Amino acid sequence: MNIKAANIEPIISPKSVAVIGASDNPTKVGHAIMQNYIDVDFQGKIYPINISAQEKIMGRKAYKSVAEVKEPIDLAVICVPAEFVPQVILECGKAKVKGVVVVSSGFAEVGNQKLQDKLEEAAKRYKLPVIGPNCLGIMDPRSKNDTLFLPTYKIERPKIGGVSFVSQSGSVGSSILDLISAEGFGLARFISYGNAAVVDEVDILNYLSHDKETRVVVFYIEGVKRGKEFAELAKKATMLKPVVILKGGTTPSGATAAHSHTASLAGSTEAYKALFRQFGFITAETLEDLLYFAKIFDTQPLTTGNRIGIITNGGGHGVLATDALYNSGLAIPELGKETQKYLRKVMPPIVNVRLPLDIGGDAGADRFSAALEALNNDSNVDAIMAITLFQTPGADEKVAETIINQGIKRTKPLVVVSTGSSYTLSHTKLIESSGVPVYESPDIAARALSALIGYSKYRKREV
Amino acid sequence: MNIKAANIEPIISPKSVAVIGASDNPTKVGHAIMQNYIDVDFQGKIYPINISAQEKIMGRKAYKSVAEVKEPIDLAVICVPAEFVPQVILECGKAKVKGVVVVSSGFAEVGNQKLQDKLEEAAKRYKLPVIGPNCLGIMDPRSKNDTLFLPTYKIERPKIGGVSFVSQSGSVGSSILDLISAEGFGLARFISYGNAAVVDEVDILNYLSHDKETRVVVFYIEGVKRGKEFAELAKKATMLKPVVILKGGTTPSGATAAHSHTASLAGSTEAYKALFRQFGFITAETLEDLLYFAKIFDTQPLTTGNRIGIITNGGGHGVLATDALYNSGLAIPELGKETQKYLRKVMPPIVNVRLPLDIGGDAGADRFSAALEALNNDSNVDAIMAITLFQTPGADEKVAETIINQGIKRTKPLVVVSTGSSYTLSHTKLIESSGVPVYESPDIAARALSALIGYSKYRKREV
Repeated sequence: MNIKAANIEPIISPKSVAVIGASDNPTKVGHAIMQNYIDVDFQGKIYPINISAQEKIMGRKAYKSVAEVKEPIDLAVICVPAEFVPQVILECGKAKVKGVVVVSSGFAEVGNQKLQDKLEEAAKRYKLPVIGPNCLGIMDPRSKNDTLFLPTYKIERPKIGGVSFVSQSGSVGSSILDLISAEGFGLARFISYGNAAVVDEVDILNYLSHDKETRVVVFYIEGVKRGKEFAELAKKATMLKPVVILKGGTTPSGATAAHSHTASLAGSTEAYKALFRQFGFITAETLEDLLYFAKIFDTQPLTTGNRIGIITNGGGHGVLATDALYNSGLAIPELGKETQKYLRKVMPPIVNVRLPLDIGGDAGADRFSAALEALNNDSNVDAIMAITLFQTPGADEKVAETIINQGIKRTKPLVVVSTGSSYTLSHTKLIESSGVPVYESPDIAARALSALIGYSKYRKREV
Repeated sequence: MNIKAANIEPIISPKSVAVIGASDNPTKVGHAIMQNYIDVDFQGKIYPINISAQEKIMGRKAYKSVAEVKEPIDLAVICVPAEFVPQVILECGKAKVKGVVVVSSGFAEVGNQKLQDKLEEAAKRYKLPVIGPNCLGIMDPRSKNDTLFLPTYKIERPKIGGVSFVSQSGSVGSSILDLISAEGFGLARFISYGNAAVVDEVDILNYLSHDKETRVVVFYIEGVKRGKEFAELAKKATMLKPVVILKGGTTPSGATAAHSHTASLAGSTEAYKALFRQFGFITAETLEDLLYFAKIFDTQPLTTGNRIGIITNGGGHGVLATDALYNSGLAIPELGKETQKYLRKVMPPIVNVRLPLDIGGDAGADRFSAALEALNNDSNVDAIMAITLFQTPGADEKVAETIINQGIKRTKPLVVVSTGSSYTLSHTKLIESSGVPVYESPDIAARALSALIGYSKYRKREV
């Protein structure tokens, strides 16, 4: 069934949460989920629920069922053993709970389709939006709704931002969530949806494509249940915002693995890739791509032009960037006459005034600033790749500041390449938090630019 | 000219070093090089040399030329302006200096081939091995010889190990050196050789292929001067140890960039790739590959079998690993009957006893240990990829210990995949320092395994 975006909202940012299966026993998932709500400082009301509850659970007034709670419940997080889940869902429906996350596993993913069907029927009877089963659920940094049973010391929680990350797989979801926390960009919504018995890819993509907090949607999927609806929706969604997808199970062996993992029917690699292109999806080939692509789409303007201006303070990196852009189907243009004239005037004579623009290993902030400005003003250049190697004698915090300032002024996409360890990272963190994506190698930066330009063309219907 | 390995040795691990162009002025490269020798605690003698020297430079007795030093000089590091370099080399020859590194730039890379020819003639007159010009030179962690003019706060220095890294480009060299310092493996020799006027790729590869400290050679090149000799030598060298190569300037635009960078004549991508395969080189496609491949070759035994046993505590990662292995041309076998029987006995019933072996999100050290042992003993499995997601409830320091212990006992290649942030990294650092390579994603691990198996087949003449 189609579930309206408005009906998913209470699951994402609820004002009150019932944890069904809450427990004082620290080895129980229900304990971890309760503890997590307390740790992340959830601002709404929390109702611990356990059929064998005494007066209190974890110091809070406990209830034997949702029926006992006489206040409105936006979200029920269910973590009781699988066999009891359908009954608990019926109780939630009766008690007018607005939405449910089923964390429990033991359904279609282990061959128990019957039990999953019962879950689905129960949800349908009350038109209850249910996420899961067999999932991690939701993390929403704004409302601090956080159904994860994985403690914050194991997974760092990302800051607030514009990227929404959706994962069919809990393991991919939690590890990417952990990686995002170390990145310069922030999270809008995290949704791990597991077996998709009720709320599925179609419902989630529909919700996020209209969600005003979400600038970029990033998806890990293993299979799509309602292919036709997904396709129709995708075409609309990708005209509203970029949607990056990594598809697991695209090979014959991978597909078999995917089936036993989330009970999805996976298609062939080529079929999916062709479809994805048609839908306007940005196809990620690897886990890392999800992050690489998310950050360029989150921060950079769209451009259909493919002429990239490389600025570098390292010759070898300039060569590798040129190779990488060429291999990604992007072009390295001639600089405009005016630009050449200007650069000849301001650069030392050793600088060869053409692309890749190697401004020398001794280049400091002045040269970077002049080069960035010149390329930003040159109509032959559509986007800029600035390679700033902080190992060189001239590169210091002033170079980072220059990039940050130019980043604010720029009208064209700008990406930075910096390869290195702690001294380098101390500067690239600043650059990233100013909204300019930094990549560790020219190859990655070239692929990110290529994704940006490809999607821009799709949006303008140029492909 | 061919330069004997024995004649290169004094450049790599000298007992005495003359810094020609040493200076009290902290803005000079000669100052930075002197300071660096002091900072890294070089154990040999250091002679600061400057034509306009007074009594002392940086607190040490100074000399106007190498002729004034009446002690034997193993290595002279030259950082005077380009025009004076040929004359200084003649003086070094006359004074029986054993080897030279020319850091100065301003030769063929800026079109001044004539000056470079003069440098070459001067070296030839005295059969003097000269590295450079236009290079960073040497870093040798054992002798603490370190000609880099880049301070240690900008580039961390790697620990002692078995990987030798050679780079035609200074920027690629210094940034990779910096990255290696954050890796689990250590450095044998670092050689940045720039324009290769005298000592070239042939001499360096010959030296390293016979160097007992070097287990793996990693090369960044933009062009090869003596193609035929390099080819002949390569075939011998790659039968002695793995040689990983990244070639810059493999595309038409990249080749143009490479020419102005190190004055190399770069060939076509396809021609190089085909040649490299024939020589037994391991071809890196990106900067990152250099590190990814270095660490598997540095630590893991060779195997020609391509059947990979995946163990995972995350379903989605298992699916992605299966896809990645398939795409890398590797196989996922059936487990042996005995293995299946054993695993059925020791694993909980929810575990599906086949590859990828998903031991569950709640798997702890016991299950990892049993799975690793079972796959190590199964003759259907040639190498193991263990995916340990430390975000999961069961994964902790005991899982890391299990991997480390199994790593010691193992007879098959073992790689670990762990995706995550600080909690994860605190465990993967331990695993890496025990000699088991850890990769951030299944894709990278699959490519590293594929490189290992491909090279093993070459060594056994199976391809």
